[in-house]
Amino acid sequence: MALAASPPPTEIIMTQYPQLLLNPQADRRVKKGHLWIYSNEVNIAKTPLKSFAPGDLAEVCSASGHPLGLAFVNPNALICGRLLTRDNRQKLDSKFLQHRITQALRLRETCFPAPYYRLVYGDADLLPGLVIDRYGDYLVVQVAVAGFDRLQDDLLAALTKVLQPKGIVIRNNHGARELEGLDDAIQIVGEVPDRLALEENGARFEVSATTGQKTGWFYDHRVSRAYLQTMVRGRRVLDVFSYVGGWGLQAAVAGADHVTCVDASETAVEGVVHNAALNKVTDRVTAVRGKAVDVLKSLVAEKNQFDVVVLDPPAFIKKRKDQQAGESAYRHINELAMRLLGKDGMLVSASCSMPLTRELLQEIVRGAARHLDRHAQLIYSGGQGPDHPVHPAIPETDYLKAQFYRVAME
Amino acid sequence: MALAASPPPTEIIMTQYPQLLLNPQADRRVKKGHLWIYSNEVNIAKTPLKSFAPGDLAEVCSASGHPLGLAFVNPNALICGRLLTRDNRQKLDSKFLQHRITQALRLRETCFPAPYYRLVYGDADLLPGLVIDRYGDYLVVQVAVAGFDRLQDDLLAALTKVLQPKGIVIRNNHGARELEGLDDAIQIVGEVPDRLALEENGARFEVSATTGQKTGWFYDHRVSRAYLQTMVRGRRVLDVFSYVGGWGLQAAVAGADHVTCVDASETAVEGVVHNAALNKVTDRVTAVRGKAVDVLKSLVAEKNQFDVVVLDPPAFIKKRKDQQAGESAYRHINELAMRLLGKDGMLVSASCSMPLTRELLQEIVRGAARHLDRHAQLIYSGGQGPDHPVHPAIPETDYLKAQFYRVAME
Repeated sequence: MALAASPPPTEIIMTQYPQLLLNPQADRRVKKGHLWIYSNEVNIAKTPLKSFAPGDLAEVCSASGHPLGLAFVNPNALICGRLLTRDNRQKLDSKFLQHRITQALRLRETCFPAPYYRLVYGDADLLPGLVIDRYGDYLVVQVAVAGFDRLQDDLLAALTKVLQPKGIVIRNNHGARELEGLDDAIQIVGEVPDRLALEENGARFEVSATTGQKTGWFYDHRVSRAYLQTMVRGRRVLDVFSYVGGWGLQAAVAGADHVTCVDASETAVEGVVHNAALNKVTDRVTAVRGKAVDVLKSLVAEKNQFDVVVLDPPAFIKKRKDQQAGESAYRHINELAMRLLGKDGMLVSASCSMPLTRELLQEIVRGAARHLDRHAQLIYSGGQGPDHPVHPAIPETDYLKAQFYRVAME
Repeated sequence: MALAASPPPTEIIMTQYPQLLLNPQADRRVKKGHLWIYSNEVNIAKTPLKSFAPGDLAEVCSASGHPLGLAFVNPNALICGRLLTRDNRQKLDSKFLQHRITQALRLRETCFPAPYYRLVYGDADLLPGLVIDRYGDYLVVQVAVAGFDRLQDDLLAALTKVLQPKGIVIRNNHGARELEGLDDAIQIVGEVPDRLALEENGARFEVSATTGQKTGWFYDHRVSRAYLQTMVRGRRVLDVFSYVGGWGLQAAVAGADHVTCVDASETAVEGVVHNAALNKVTDRVTAVRGKAVDVLKSLVAEKNQFDVVVLDPPAFIKKRKDQQAGESAYRHINELAMRLLGKDGMLVSASCSMPLTRELLQEIVRGAARHLDRHAQLIYSGGQGPDHPVHPAIPETDYLKAQFYRVAME
C-alpha cells in the first residue's frame, strides 16, 4: 500500500466543554429522546469519569464521535450524565435557563388560570434535576443534581428575569440529593412568609414551604381532584392519607355533606383544621390523627360507611425491592376502603409509586372487589396534571395514578 | 372390598337451566371476574355445545361441577358463553334486567347533569353484548349477542319500566352481529324523530340514529373534549376525522378563534354545518370534505399552521393482523399533524383501537417528535368517560385513548 500523498484527515471537533464518550450502542436511549447516561455506558478508557468534578458540563458523544448534546456530569452518581440540550453549540448560561423557564411557563399559562402550579418538572421540561413550584409571587426550588447547585446564581438570575418573584425558597433537604452526594440545606432568597397561599379547583390553602412535605403542596393530583368535585355533592367523603386536605377540602368546597380527613402527622392534621377554616367548611370537616390502616380498621369495626373513599398513600414502592411488600400494602388498604363503601360507593385509589403500573393498581382493585364479591367499574383513570408533563421517551417521568371506581353489589 | 351397605351418594344440583361444563383450569379467567367463555374451554364430551341453540341460557360449571353463574350460550360463536350473573339461582327475566339497568342508570346520574350518555356499556355493566345510548327521551339499542335478541321483549319491558322512553331505535345493523351469526335489522318502537338532540359539554348536537355512525353519536370522548375546552380560547383548531364535529364544535363553543373540521363523509360534513348553526358558531367553523391524509398533506404543502390539531381516526387496528399497517397509519397521521403545529402547539392524538396500547400510542408520538426534532410533552392522558366504564377483569372493555401533547421546538 502506497503512502498517502497528503496527511490523513484530522477530525477536529470544536467544543466548549470536555468530551464524554459513550460505549458502542449506549447512545440508543439518548437518540430516542431520553436524557440520562448511566456510568457503565461511558467509555472510561478514553474519557475517565474521574476526570470530571460533580456538576461539570460535558459534550456527550456517541462511540463514533457523533455529538449528542451537552450534559451535566456527576462522576459519583449512577446516572452520571443528564442531557440539557441536543445542540452542542449552546451556551449554558442564565439566558439559556431563561429560555427553558419561559418555555415551561408558557405551558402552565395555557393550562391554568392562576399562578399556582409546578413551574418546572425536571426532565420533562428539559431541566434535569430541577423542580420549581410556584405559589403566586413565591417560588420553591428543589435541586437534585450537582450541576444546578453550581449554576445556582444563573438560575436565580433567570427566575428573577422571567418572573420577578418576591421570594424564593431553595429547599435542598430531600432524599434525591444523597444519590448525587450533595449536602442538605434550606436557603431563602428575598422575603418569604411562614405560610404560602395557593388556590386549586376553587379551594384555598396555606402551606409551609419549609416544614411541609415536599415543597409544601402536591399540585400533581389537581385534575383528578377537579374530577372528584363533580360527584361529591351531598355525599360523605373519607380522605385517607389526607396531608393538609387536598382531596377532602376540595370535596367539601364542592358541596360534600361531610368529609373526614385522616393523617398520621400532627402538622398535617393541623393543616386540615387551618385550611378548613380558610374555606369556611369547618362544620362539615372532621380531622383525625392516626395511622391509616389503624383508622380504616376501626372504621370498619364500627360499621361506618362512606359514599366516597379516597386513598392517596405515600409511595409504598420506591425501589424494586419494595415491590412485593408494597403491592401487599396497596391491596390491604384498598380492601379495607372497599369495606367502608355502601352498596353503591366510589373508591378513588391513587398511587405515586412509579413502579406500580396502572395495570397493576387496576389488578389490585379487581382482586379486592372479587374477594368482597363486589362489582367494580373503573370510571376515570387520572394521572399527573399538565404541570407535571410526561416526557414520552422517559418513562421515569410518569408516576401518578388516580383511579376512580364505582363499587356496587352485583 | 366389601359392597357398600348404602347406595353411593348421588350429586344432585338443582338448576333451572342446562349445564355447560368447563374443562379443567378453564374457570380461572371467569373466577377473576371475566365474563367470557371460549368454545375450546367447554367440556363438549359431557355438555356438547351443539345441544344448545343460539341465545339459550345455561348454568356454567367448573370441571369439578362448581357453579360459576348463568350465561348466554351461542354454539356458533368463538365466545360461546357470556356470563350474566354469578348467582345461579337468579331468574333471568324482565325484573332482573330492570335491576341491571337501574344500577347502570344510577352511575350515569351520579356523573352527568343531563340525560345524554351511554346508559349501558355491555360487559362493564354486566349486560354482555348490549349497548344502549340515551338521547333524553329516546334510546338507541345495539344488540351483539343472540341472547338479547331472544330476550328483546323482556328488555323493552324493562326499559319502559325504568325510563318510560318516548321511542326506542333497535339498531341491529353492525359488524359485531355477524360473529354471532345474527341478521341485520333496524326496528323502531314508539315514535322517534329523524334527528335526536343531545348536549355535551355545553354544546348542542342533532344526529341521526338510523343513518349516523354507530348509534348516531360517540359519547366516549366527552371528558377529554371537556379538557380540550379548557385550552382553546383564541386558538386555531383543526379537527381531523371530525364526524359531525364532536371535538371541533365543542372547541368553537369554548371560544376557539377558528375551527376547521375534516371528514371524508358527505353526511358528516353536512352534520358539521348543521350543528355549527345550532350552536351559532358558523362564522368560526369551516367544514372540509376530504380524506384525512390528503387534506393533511395539502395543509402541510400550503404551509398552514394551527395551534391545536385533533386526530380522532376510526380504529386502524381492529384485529391483530392489522397491527403493523395500523401502527404505520397512526405514525403517518401523527407526523403530518405535528408538521401543522406552530412553534408551541397542542396535538390531541386519539385512538379507539383496543390493540393499540397507551404505551404504543405514546411511542408513536415520541417517534414523530424525534423525527421532526420537536419536544413533545404528554400533558393529559384521557380515556373513556364514566358512561363507558372499564371492567377491571375485562381488558377488552378498555379501548379509548386521547393523549394531549404540547409540542415545542427544543
